Amino acid sequence: MEFTINQVAALIGGQVKGNGDEKINMLAKIQEAKKGQIAFLSNPKYEPFIYTTQASAVIVKKDFQPKKEVQSTLILVDDPYVSFTALLEQYHQMITFQKVGVEQPSYISENAVVGSSVYRGAFSYIGNKVKIGNNVKIYPNAYIGDDVVIGDNTILYAGVKIYAGTRIGANCTVHSGAVIGSDGFGFAPQQDGTYKTIPQMGHVVLEDNVSIGANTVIDCATLMGDATTIRKGVKLDNLIQVAHNVEIGKNTVIAAQTGISGSSRIGENCIIGGQVGVAGHLKIANKTGIGAQAGILKSITEEGERILGSPAFDAKQYFQSYAVFKKLPELHSGLRDLEKKVDQLEGDKIDK
Amino acid sequence: MEFTINQVAALIGGQVKGNGDEKINMLAKIQEAKKGQIAFLSNPKYEPFIYTTQASAVIVKKDFQPKKEVQSTLILVDDPYVSFTALLEQYHQMITFQKVGVEQPSYISENAVVGSSVYRGAFSYIGNKVKIGNNVKIYPNAYIGDDVVIGDNTILYAGVKIYAGTRIGANCTVHSGAVIGSDGFGFAPQQDGTYKTIPQMGHVVLEDNVSIGANTVIDCATLMGDATTIRKGVKLDNLIQVAHNVEIGKNTVIAAQTGISGSSRIGENCIIGGQVGVAGHLKIANKTGIGAQAGILKSITEEGERILGSPAFDAKQYFQSYAVFKKLPELHSGLRDLEKKVDQLEGDKIDK
Amino acid sequence: MEFTINQVAALIGGQVKGNGDEKINMLAKIQEAKKGQIAFLSNPKYEPFIYTTQASAVIVKKDFQPKKEVQSTLILVDDPYVSFTALLEQYHQMITFQKVGVEQPSYISENAVVGSSVYRGAFSYIGNKVKIGNNVKIYPNAYIGDDVVIGDNTILYAGVKIYAGTRIGANCTVHSGAVIGSDGFGFAPQQDGTYKTIPQMGHVVLEDNVSIGANTVIDCATLMGDATTIRKGVKLDNLIQVAHNVEIGKNTVIAAQTGISGSSRIGENCIIGGQVGVAGHLKIANKTGIGAQAGILKSITEEGERILGSPAFDAKQYFQSYAVFKKLPELHSGLRDLEKKVDQLEGDKIDK
Repeated sequence: MEFTINQVAALIGGQVKGNGDEKINMLAKIQEAKKGQIAFLSNPKYEPFIYTTQASAVIVKKDFQPKKEVQSTLILVDDPYVSFTALLEQYHQMITFQKVGVEQPSYISENAVVGSSVYRGAFSYIGNKVKIGNNVKIYPNAYIGDDVVIGDNTILYAGVKIYAGTRIGANCTVHSGAVIGSDGFGFAPQQDGTYKTIPQMGHVVLEDNVSIGANTVIDCATLMGDATTIRKGVKLDNLIQVAHNVEIGKNTVIAAQTGISGSSRIGENCIIGGQVGVAGHLKIANKTGIGAQAGILKSITEEGERILGSPAFDAKQYFQSYAVFKKLPELHSGLRDLEKKVDQLEGDKIDK
Repeated sequence: MEFTINQVAALIGGQVKGNGDEKINMLAKIQEAKKGQIAFLSNPKYEPFIYTTQASAVIVKKDFQPKKEVQSTLILVDDPYVSFTALLEQYHQMITFQKVGVEQPSYISENAVVGSSVYRGAFSYIGNKVKIGNNVKIYPNAYIGDDVVIGDNTILYAGVKIYAGTRIGANCTVHSGAVIGSDGFGFAPQQDGTYKTIPQMGHVVLEDNVSIGANTVIDCATLMGDATTIRKGVKLDNLIQVAHNVEIGKNTVIAAQTGISGSSRIGENCIIGGQVGVAGHLKIANKTGIGAQAGILKSITEEGERILGSPAFDAKQYFQSYAVFKKLPELHSGLRDLEKKVDQLEGDKIDK
Repeated sequence: MEFTINQVAALIGGQVKGNGDEKINMLAKIQEAKKGQIAFLSNPKYEPFIYTTQASAVIVKKDFQPKKEVQSTLILVDDPYVSFTALLEQYHQMITFQKVGVEQPSYISENAVVGSSVYRGAFSYIGNKVKIGNNVKIYPNAYIGDDVVIGDNTILYAGVKIYAGTRIGANCTVHSGAVIGSDGFGFAPQQDGTYKTIPQMGHVVLEDNVSIGANTVIDCATLMGDATTIRKGVKLDNLIQVAHNVEIGKNTVIAAQTGISGSSRIGENCIIGGQVGVAGHLKIANKTGIGAQAGILKSITEEGERILGSPAFDAKQYFQSYAVFKKLPELHSGLRDLEKKVDQLEGDKIDK
């Protein structure tokens, strides 16, 4: 994985100023880059580093005018940050897509169907009637239960557990330790104080372009044919709990350790902070913003609200109330003082 | 897995009205059911669907009087919901209990003892001197450390990790990624600011009929011979933390992402919401109800309390306080106004 | 693993009083110990048990004067608790260090380098160019991605997942289900409401003597060459979230279910409670104490502060404010009463 500066410049449509034959093998920050590495300069704040960096190449803006001598070869582009990010992505794909083929021992049922260019790591398990698309990467120790369907280009990292019947779209990423399709938490209280398990027979659907964080859990729906559904483009961080029959709308982003209780429906393009709790059977409008650690006890019907607190209400008002909360002891003694004064005034009145 | 309507009716003790020879192979909701499926009608709100459903059979109440023509065959029973649930359970067991036998490669130590009709999935690991009962299902990639004992009919889903010395009862379910018996969090501060690890040498006991959610963690007790103990019939949701030496009483139910700190003892038949934190060394009375996100800092001695907040107190009072909290800015300015008025009144008095 | 009482006494430098030839094979609490077990007496409260215990041996203080007859052999030492703890540790090491050698099947790449006395459990996976030190224990179903480096004496429990490029020091412990090096949660919003994945190309560094709890997740840094860094002696409990580019300072201890958002830097010797949330890009001073469930929204610049609440402020003040919060309904009606009285007084004034 080594390229000449000329090759890299061609890749990002840039113009080389200096020695284009030098080889680079890594991307780095301008303040830390060494020989053989490529960096970029976008923010003018970092300009001083271009005069001292040891980077073999630096991606700069077309119209960049050095104030001192620059040792590195320059690659001139329209937007250095965009070009650098494009390089990063190329590099990332090259690393990721190295993994192809089957490591042994691994397990695959006889009637599973697997597409082309698939990676199946050692100790990965593929159950009965599973259908796996092209370019799918299944890392070691991943488990895929019976009747699961997985779309093209999806990556399941090491130790992911996919329960039977789950449907996963294309271009999804599921990080290590995530569990998809475990039983919903459903128990019917009995007369004698015990609980009877309500069979959880539905499944989970992840649509395309969904990302699931490490050790996040998504429970299956209760009834057969029903699905806990994660819509296109949803991004879930680590250690999130998604209960049975929940639906999360398109392009909603949820930070780590948040929990969504059973049957709640989260709208599209919501941004939900970390450690938030959403109670069951609620409906959250599109574009709702929920602050970290909030507790949601009622549905949000209007789009674009920002809420906070437990139970949550308007975030701005929450901060105003909280500002007074911090002064409550003063406020309390202020009230006590006032009561004494008023008693005094009333006493005076009576005295007259 | 296909039955005639007559066979299903016999199974639930119902009476067939219509063609009992048709075959059904799936259960469904009345509003969605198709040919070959069976549904039920319990809630009168759903009655309209019985006149349009394509279900081959519908389970109805004995005294049901159709107002229009019904295409489906009817099965008359005392309580359609109960009968349908019974069918669900039967079906669920049939699916679950399909798994029997040993997939290869799997690992079992020479001196482990395994009962009859056990399923051992590929890449499952059974350590030294482990004892496993009858009808136990050990899914792929599950790990069972040395000296573990597991009772009859217990299910360990894929990727469960059971540390050495754990005792698990009969009819338990442990969902994927759960960790039972990891070291308690015990570190003794040293003079130089570092911490010394306190060896955690106890174990974990799960009694019968316990259910453990996905990615939940239960730490072992500190001292040898001691156990972190989860009593009969306890149901723990996903991503819960149970620290060392905790005891959770019979039939207590805990929702996702709650954490119980070391040595606390939770009573029987408690209902604990999600994301609750219980501090260490507390005792929570039987039948306590703890609202979501509450923080428990002191023991609850009276049975049947409902608490909320952090630190938690009576839930009803919490909501009352919180209602005022939301109005604190008004209250604050009300107080300021009043102070001015009283100053004015006092000034008037002095003026006289 | 059976020793005579004389052998145990020699090990802890104690003096035997009684039959030193009896064999013991387990440590136990004095109130529960049986024949063949050894207990200790430190707290005078427990003295009565020494006259009834069935323990074969009891470790006691040098100057202990029994008030009645004692059946057990005594081992006299300076500090019975310290001696007992030392024994515990010895015992614990003996158990832990039994595991050596390779169980099959396990997977190791051709170009991995493994030290001496290493345990590699069945179904463990060691990727390309991995370097593993001496006395390392890799339990079953653990996954170690490409280019990982692991120092001497480190233990990776069953089902741990270490992503490519992670560096782990010596004497570390990583508990089951922990994930080290998963992608940071980085997504760039696009014009059409979708999100584009920002490649996460950094890695994670765990320095020496770090302990990571079960199912805890540590994300990798965003940029190549950067690392999410856990400094020497840090102890993380279970189910903790550490986001990309975070740094946790030496000897800091964090309780379960806490989350640290991206790029925040936690100081040294901090003590952080459970279920705490720290927002992104903050700096927390050394020796900060953060109470359970707190939410940190701004940097802490002064060492040794104790904070609580969400958003968090001084813990003592939080409790004072919270005490008034609990009385808010009274306070509210007190204010209303006062308003009426003042209106009355003002009315009186006008009447005059």
